[in-house]
Amino acid sequence: MDPLTYKQSGVDIEAGDEVVRRIVPLAQNTFRPEVVGGIGAFAGFFRVPTGYREPVLVASTDGVGTKLKVAVMLDRHDTVGIDLVAMGVNDLLVHGAAPLFFLDYLAVSKVVPAQVEAIVSGIAEGCRQAGASLIGGETAELSGMYAPGEYDLAGFALGVVERDRLVDGSAVKPGDRILGLASSGLHSNGYSLARQVLFERLGLRVTDPFRGEDRSIGEELLVPTRIYVRPVLNLLAALPVAAMAHITGGGITGNLPRILPEGCRAVIERGTWPVPAIFELIQTGGQVAEAEMYRTFNMGLGFLLIVAAEQVDEAKRRLEVQGEQVFEVGEVRAGSGGVEYVDGRSSR
Amino acid sequence: MDPLTYKQSGVDIEAGDEVVRRIVPLAQNTFRPEVVGGIGAFAGFFRVPTGYREPVLVASTDGVGTKLKVAVMLDRHDTVGIDLVAMGVNDLLVHGAAPLFFLDYLAVSKVVPAQVEAIVSGIAEGCRQAGASLIGGETAELSGMYAPGEYDLAGFALGVVERDRLVDGSAVKPGDRILGLASSGLHSNGYSLARQVLFERLGLRVTDPFRGEDRSIGEELLVPTRIYVRPVLNLLAALPVAAMAHITGGGITGNLPRILPEGCRAVIERGTWPVPAIFELIQTGGQVAEAEMYRTFNMGLGFLLIVAAEQVDEAKRRLEVQGEQVFEVGEVRAGSGGVEYVDGRSSR
Repeated sequence: MDPLTYKQSGVDIEAGDEVVRRIVPLAQNTFRPEVVGGIGAFAGFFRVPTGYREPVLVASTDGVGTKLKVAVMLDRHDTVGIDLVAMGVNDLLVHGAAPLFFLDYLAVSKVVPAQVEAIVSGIAEGCRQAGASLIGGETAELSGMYAPGEYDLAGFALGVVERDRLVDGSAVKPGDRILGLASSGLHSNGYSLARQVLFERLGLRVTDPFRGEDRSIGEELLVPTRIYVRPVLNLLAALPVAAMAHITGGGITGNLPRILPEGCRAVIERGTWPVPAIFELIQTGGQVAEAEMYRTFNMGLGFLLIVAAEQVDEAKRRLEVQGEQVFEVGEVRAGSGGVEYVDGRSSR
Repeated sequence: MDPLTYKQSGVDIEAGDEVVRRIVPLAQNTFRPEVVGGIGAFAGFFRVPTGYREPVLVASTDGVGTKLKVAVMLDRHDTVGIDLVAMGVNDLLVHGAAPLFFLDYLAVSKVVPAQVEAIVSGIAEGCRQAGASLIGGETAELSGMYAPGEYDLAGFALGVVERDRLVDGSAVKPGDRILGLASSGLHSNGYSLARQVLFERLGLRVTDPFRGEDRSIGEELLVPTRIYVRPVLNLLAALPVAAMAHITGGGITGNLPRILPEGCRAVIERGTWPVPAIFELIQTGGQVAEAEMYRTFNMGLGFLLIVAAEQVDEAKRRLEVQGEQVFEVGEVRAGSGGVEYVDGRSSR
């Protein structure tokens, strides 16, 4: 019998070294002045930013889910990293925190350096959009854990907020208005259902044209998640915001109640914002119930903000000048939690 | 055709909610006083500890690798979380940082609440051993990404160190001695090769007895990674340490040079510590070359410390009274990087 090596068992240390050579410059391009030292040691270093009286660290971890399968179907890997960063930093943003740094965990069956480089280039792009430094990561070669070409991706985002500016929803009161920021599409949630409807029930292929649009179904599904960090942090510096919600798995139905205080419920007025065509295609194609759609997908709103009624116009204006599409989509009422959906503008 | 639901597409939100109910108390048991608020919002909160003049955050991410496959073979899931935490916090420790908090990412094909609870109970135990708070996590149900019962696990560890006490190896000089702390076995690296040798080439089963020991092969492979945090932090409070290395993928050969400064190389004297039987079984069974063993496995040393020659006795004593097995395994010499292995005690 031949002597065995680690490489024969499916782990290629040379390919790993090649990956490091390719991705270190990508990460270094995201470095803020607080990054201490370089990359290559056992961990990443970041000075606690000065100027905070009582800094609170805010941390989040998330993945991209089975949107990754669409990337594999299209063999296009340079955008899912943007989704990964978005999923983490938008969660920090909910609490008013400014992202500081990000780390990624990439698990593959076999390291293909060019593929890993493409994935990390997306992560670095997401970090730039969020103002975060990519100070570390792990590429794990897990022989036999994933189908050939497939991979999983998780990320860790760390931010900071002044303790007395931490937004936790406690300031929400009945009468506050709910603003929605347009999503760019499905973002990173609901892909198991979307893929089942589009590719199995409707029999579409990723390369099929997306009706009425200049892109394919696959391209539509792969549009990166919006990163709301810069416009929302700028807003927070100028105006009080009572609460925010990042609309991820669970949709508005699952995410909005997470930041409502006791004694409050949310009323969302359907028809006050345009639901993108991809959601209608999924709903119709899968005969998916309306309630199921709203507790699975973002339905066109990737991020919600709750502001006092008298601040609505100013908040909208400040967000719109920064390029956001903003919709007044509902209000907070007295009640015992939950989200009620009503048609059109409801009577107050 | 029937209407589709998210659950039918493979994502069970109720099972996810059940998981949250089970794991929140596990996480809360790890909370330090710096944790702000609870769990359930979009992110975890942790006050920057007071008493640091210039606190530097130290962050690491890692996974458990295919050791997870052994857990699945044995259907025992309450210890791999200890490995997960160990992989992260031992990396922080290399730089002198005290762990503050931890977040986990668990990806499964199908959420089985009792399995997730077992996994998270191990993470919580690891956090207790490391003095870290488990302030967040994500359980991702990725339908069709993993074989039934399999899962992947990644973790993110955050620590803090006073800037002028950050250990980066720059203080290492020729003549310094290298101390090794005993590992508990394979720890979390080299499992692709170990499994190939033991289960394929030697045809062993996880339930087969491990020769000369009171446990099975599977139990030996599943022994959790040692967490060196408390003894090493206590040592650092008392004595200067020039550099440390966590011996993970790449073995001593790959990890020790990462913290050697320019102009230094390491000489490791084989025979100065006992190599556990599991490594000999793998080496013999797979006819694995000695050099390959040393660049794949920890070979019995999970953590190395480099100290000035005159500090060796004091460092050993301080580590031993805390329950560590400590070996003087080599020294630093002038040279251009790398690790040389010599037999027995080398001449100085």
